[in-house]
Amino acid sequence: RYGYFGQVTPEVVRLMFCKVSGCLTEGRIFLSASQEEMVSITTRDIAGLRKLKKENVEVLLLTSSNYPVPKPLADKLSQRTGCQVIQVGEEPLKDLQPIVEQKKLDWKDVAFMGNDTEDTSCLNLAGLSAVPGDAPADAIKASKYTCHQAGGMGAVWEFSEHILLQKKKAQSQMEQDRIDRINF
Amino acid sequence: RYGYFGQVTPEVVRLMFCKVSGCLTEGRIFLSASQEEMVSITTRDIAGLRKLKKENVEVLLLTSSNYPVPKPLADKLSQRTGCQVIQVGEEPLKDLQPIVEQKKLDWKDVAFMGNDTEDTSCLNLAGLSAVPGDAPADAIKASKYTCHQAGGMGAVWEFSEHILLQKKKAQSQMEQDRIDRINF
Amino acid sequence: RYGYFGQVTPEVVRLMFCKVSGCLTEGRIFLSASQEEMVSITTRDIAGLRKLKKENVEVLLLTSSNYPVPKPLADKLSQRTGCQVIQVGEEPLKDLQPIVEQKKLDWKDVAFMGNDTEDTSCLNLAGLSAVPGDAPADAIKASKYTCHQAGGMGAVWEFSEHILLQKKKAQSQMEQDRIDRINF
Amino acid sequence: RYGYFGQVTPEVVRLMFCKVSGCLTEGRIFLSASQEEMVSITTRDIAGLRKLKKENVEVLLLTSSNYPVPKPLADKLSQRTGCQVIQVGEEPLKDLQPIVEQKKLDWKDVAFMGNDTEDTSCLNLAGLSAVPGDAPADAIKASKYTCHQAGGMGAVWEFSEHILLQKKKAQSQMEQDRIDRINF
Repeated sequence: RYGYFGQVTPEVVRLMFCKVSGCLTEGRIFLSASQEEMVSITTRDIAGLRKLKKENVEVLLLTSSNYPVPKPLADKLSQRTGCQVIQVGEEPLKDLQPIVEQKKLDWKDVAFMGNDTEDTSCLNLAGLSAVPGDAPADAIKASKYTCHQAGGMGAVWEFSEHILLQKKKAQSQMEQDRIDRINF
Repeated sequence: RYGYFGQVTPEVVRLMFCKVSGCLTEGRIFLSASQEEMVSITTRDIAGLRKLKKENVEVLLLTSSNYPVPKPLADKLSQRTGCQVIQVGEEPLKDLQPIVEQKKLDWKDVAFMGNDTEDTSCLNLAGLSAVPGDAPADAIKASKYTCHQAGGMGAVWEFSEHILLQKKKAQSQMEQDRIDRINF
Repeated sequence: RYGYFGQVTPEVVRLMFCKVSGCLTEGRIFLSASQEEMVSITTRDIAGLRKLKKENVEVLLLTSSNYPVPKPLADKLSQRTGCQVIQVGEEPLKDLQPIVEQKKLDWKDVAFMGNDTEDTSCLNLAGLSAVPGDAPADAIKASKYTCHQAGGMGAVWEFSEHILLQKKKAQSQMEQDRIDRINF
Repeated sequence: RYGYFGQVTPEVVRLMFCKVSGCLTEGRIFLSASQEEMVSITTRDIAGLRKLKKENVEVLLLTSSNYPVPKPLADKLSQRTGCQVIQVGEEPLKDLQPIVEQKKLDWKDVAFMGNDTEDTSCLNLAGLSAVPGDAPADAIKASKYTCHQAGGMGAVWEFSEHILLQKKKAQSQMEQDRIDRINF
């Protein structure tokens, strides 16, 4: 009956941060003699991001200063996914803390997807967090959920489904609480 | 002897719908800083589509409004495969029903290949239907045949062989029926 | 001691035919909105082709009329591998028989690598023949050697090593025969 | 206590040679009809190279005359990784010996990553050496460490971690020796 007293609320994510390199892409860069760089993304992952937006979860894509994505490519990614792309430094938490505060959110309302040692602090803090199946050991340890899919091959889609499932659970819990309250 | 009375006719497919993203391609899009988008297809799949055409099965390739394929790329796909490419909305059945009717066909004469939750109604209706081996659970459940090959890696070829095998079986059945009728 | 009488000579290949699509490449074509087509090859396979040339095995690359390779791309492949590229029709044997005859060779002096149903007659005839590990069942059945590597991922290199090993065996056999003859 | 007498010093690598083709890349080349060539590298491998530089290990990337990389592509690789790219001939040792001597180093201070038969002499000589998991048998035999990751998919990152771990071990050993000496 503790749901009624609001002590434990299931996770309802309002904001998702998602690393581009290694999560939305495989982490591979295609280089050619001319100045073009190419990355690959999966349509299923885009579908996952769209579904989150429809359910009122804002998504921000993160590029790392360690592997900078050329501006025109970032624009292209933004246009294709319908999400804003922002760049973070070597300690992503420093760049993301002000954003979380400015949106008047708490880290427990945030979902974070990363795949790097530098992402561990955010993976620890976020209410829901995930890594692709091919992430290094320390990132896997810090995250709450390890995807079956590898980065750039459906991991973002898998985590989106996971987030929406948690949200549904939370809503049905709240509904149950409301009924309990009335019948009290 | 029921074949003779026409109560059970084996499947003779006249029309095939095939999703581009995730079936003919892997579902990956290669993005570069300049405005180019790239997808990959497999020559074996093209051979499968050609074989179907030779055996008088019309093939229509479907792109989804969820992952729109740029017009010039759709033209290129059409030219490379020799098949018309049409775009469908979020509920493909709505767009395909008029086509099936206009061609004076029944859904049992139609083969459908998809790989998405939105494809389930068509996968259920079509006389023959298939998903690539890497499709999500709900699409696999709705389809009659699950390919061993993944999307963009030979799944279309595998389904084409399956369709032509069913057709051959149907023809030999009809031939047998004709002989039975004569000898009756 | 039959080697001495020349009744059984181990295979010494002088000419190798190698299909491009599915053997030297994975059989994938990368398509983009602009008119560019892209394929991928593996440096190890190129090394294999070079080694064959050094050991006096001529290599001819074959493209099929079923999946025509654009002329500039064929030129590029030719330049990168140092081998001539020729196009064959739906029944490759018809196009290759005159070449074998013109070079005053017998099919037992020829190595053939293919990965398609249409290649079965050549796979059967050639003294040494191979398919990549991911070839369809009928091609595997017709070939003398099935590579562990998949097409475009080292299969050509693997077959080259196999050819050169057979050649070495043949040479040591001939050497042994010469010694036997002297000591007779 | 032998550390104190300097008889056995753990490996502290100062210089790393790393083959581009098959180690930093998968060994695949993407060819298109126009004169563009493309290769793919992994961001995690770049991170590994950067970490080495930060820990004062100089890294030189090697291209082979067997698979020459076009100059503009080599420049691009150099810019993306922050490492100099140099070309070696068919016997890499001949080209690298003068560099090792000029830097007043011994081969035991050098790390070498290769994936080819021609690399065996360097793999044997170097204090630390590695091959990607998909290297041919003779290269695996000559190397001291076989990566779990394949070439172009994280093998360089894995070897970098291995090098830095050895360095840390060596430093803690030296520290221990210093303490032992004081307490002697």
